Amino acid sequence: MPVLRYVHRHRVRYRECDPMGVVYHAHYLDWFEAARTEALRSAGLPYANLEAAGVVMPVVEAALKYHGSARYDDVVDVEALFPEMPRVRAVVDYAVRRTGESAVLVSGRVVLCFLDVTRGRPVAAPALVVEAFERAARDPSRAV
Amino acid sequence: MPVLRYVHRHRVRYRECDPMGVVYHAHYLDWFEAARTEALRSAGLPYANLEAAGVVMPVVEAALKYHGSARYDDVVDVEALFPEMPRVRAVVDYAVRRTGESAVLVSGRVVLCFLDVTRGRPVAAPALVVEAFERAARDPSRAV
Amino acid sequence: MPVLRYVHRHRVRYRECDPMGVVYHAHYLDWFEAARTEALRSAGLPYANLEAAGVVMPVVEAALKYHGSARYDDVVDVEALFPEMPRVRAVVDYAVRRTGESAVLVSGRVVLCFLDVTRGRPVAAPALVVEAFERAARDPSRAV
Amino acid sequence: MPVLRYVHRHRVRYRECDPMGVVYHAHYLDWFEAARTEALRSAGLPYANLEAAGVVMPVVEAALKYHGSARYDDVVDVEALFPEMPRVRAVVDYAVRRTGESAVLVSGRVVLCFLDVTRGRPVAAPALVVEAFERAARDPSRAV
Repeated sequence: MPVLRYVHRHRVRYRECDPMGVVYHAHYLDWFEAARTEALRSAGLPYANLEAAGVVMPVVEAALKYHGSARYDDVVDVEALFPEMPRVRAVVDYAVRRTGESAVLVSGRVVLCFLDVTRGRPVAAPALVVEAFERAARDPSRAV
Repeated sequence: MPVLRYVHRHRVRYRECDPMGVVYHAHYLDWFEAARTEALRSAGLPYANLEAAGVVMPVVEAALKYHGSARYDDVVDVEALFPEMPRVRAVVDYAVRRTGESAVLVSGRVVLCFLDVTRGRPVAAPALVVEAFERAARDPSRAV
Repeated sequence: MPVLRYVHRHRVRYRECDPMGVVYHAHYLDWFEAARTEALRSAGLPYANLEAAGVVMPVVEAALKYHGSARYDDVVDVEALFPEMPRVRAVVDYAVRRTGESAVLVSGRVVLCFLDVTRGRPVAAPALVVEAFERAARDPSRAV
Repeated sequence: MPVLRYVHRHRVRYRECDPMGVVYHAHYLDWFEAARTEALRSAGLPYANLEAAGVVMPVVEAALKYHGSARYDDVVDVEALFPEMPRVRAVVDYAVRRTGESAVLVSGRVVLCFLDVTRGRPVAAPALVVEAFERAARDPSRAV
C-alpha cells in the first residue's frame, strides 16, 4: 500500500518540445522533481525545511519508460507515489497522463538517498521525514 | 562484443549545476544524447541523414545510476557504447567519468526505436543504419 | 495604456537554481514564455490555434534586467503586459516579483514577429490575433 | 579597442531545438555563458579561481537580437568580446555565426557585476581579474 501519493498538474511549454513536436525525453525528470516536491509539501515537509535541517536528497537512480508522447500545450497530470516509508532511501514512482485520460504516457521511478550536508555522507531518513510520512499515513483524508 | 563505442568530452557548465554545486541529475540525459549523436556520426551516420530519410529515433527507455557527482567546470568523458547491432531497437550504454579518472560517476542505458515519420509507426533499423554499423565493425581502426 | 495584462504564478524548482542558490538567469526567459502564452490564452487565443492557422511567433528581441534574485521554492508572479496592439511585431513587457511583494526581481521585454509558416516570411498580425486583442480591450472585467 | 576576444565552437543539440526546428531562443544565453567562461580561461582566469577567491559574477543585464536561426546539428561559432576592461561591471558582447559563414544569427550583450560572497555585496573587479585582462592585453599573440 503506497504511503503517499500526489498529482502535480503541468502545462507543456514550447521550450520543452523538440523538433518532433513532442516533449524532449529528459524533461520528464524535471516534472518528476516538481511532483515529488509537491508530494512532500502536501505531507507537511517542504524540501527547504529538510535543507534547513542540513539534509539534502540527491537522486541515486532514475528509470523511465516512454509509452507515448506529451505534446505542446497539453495539460498533464504527473502522479508521484511513494510505495513505502522512506528509510535509507526514498523510492518514488511516477506516471504521466494527459489530464482526463487514463493512458500512461511516461512511467518512471526515482530513488533518492538522504545526505548529511555537513558530514557529507548518507544517513537514514531523518525524524522530520519519518514523522511527516507517519502523519500523512494516519490522515484519512489522504488515504491513497 | 560491442559494435560501436565513442567518447564525447564535455566541460560542465554553471547552468548545469544545482544548489548542491553538482550537475543536476536530468542533464546527464543531455550528455548521453550528445555522445550517441557523435558515435553515430563517427560511424558515418549523422542523425540529420536519418531524418532526411524519413526516420527518427525516439527514446523508449532510459535508466541512470548516480555513483558520484560531476561538479562545475569539470571536464568529463561521456562514453557511449552500442553493445549490439541495432535491429528493432538501438541500445546504448553510457559511462561518465572525469577525464583521466577511472571511477564512473554516472552510468546509464538508453533504448531507442526507429520511427517512420510519414507512416508514424515503428520500423526496423533502416539499411543506412545497418550498413553504417557493419562498416564500423569491419574497420580495424575502430576496434572496440 | 496596455492592451493586455496577465500574471502567471510559478514555483521555483531545484532544477532552475544554480550553485549561487538562485535562479539561473536564462530561465526567466522560460517564465516569460509561459506568461505570454497564458496571457494570449486568457484573451481567447491559445498559441496552438495560431500554429493551426499557419502562423508562428518567433522571438526577435529579448532584454532582461536583474535587480534581485528568486530563490529555490519561492513562489513568483510573472507579469506579462502587452503595452500596445500587436501589428507587425508584438511587444511584451515582464516583471517578476515574489508573490505578495512589490519589489521587481527581474524585468524584461520580448519582441516577437509573426511568421507565415508555409511562405517562410514575416506577416502582419493575423486577424485572429487582432480580434482577440480587440475583444480583450472591450472586456471591462479585463481592464488593465 | 576590445580587450579580450574568444570564439567558442558548439554543435547544436536536439535538446536545444524547438518544434520550429530551430534553437529555442533562451539557449543562446547558455552559449554566451560557455563562451565568456572560455574567454576568461583563455586569459588565465578560470571562473572557479574567482569563486575560490570568494567572488562570483552574477548577470545584471542581458539583451539579445535574433537575426536568423541556428538549426539542429549546425556547428556555430559563439564569439565573446569584452569591449573594455572590467571595473565595477564586466560587459561582454556576443555574436553567433554558423562556422565558416559571416552572417550573424544572434547578437547580444551581457553585463555582469562582481559580488563578494561572504559580505553579499558588489565590489570592484578584484585584482586577479584586472591582472588577467592586463596580461591578455599585453600578449601580442592575443591581439584582438
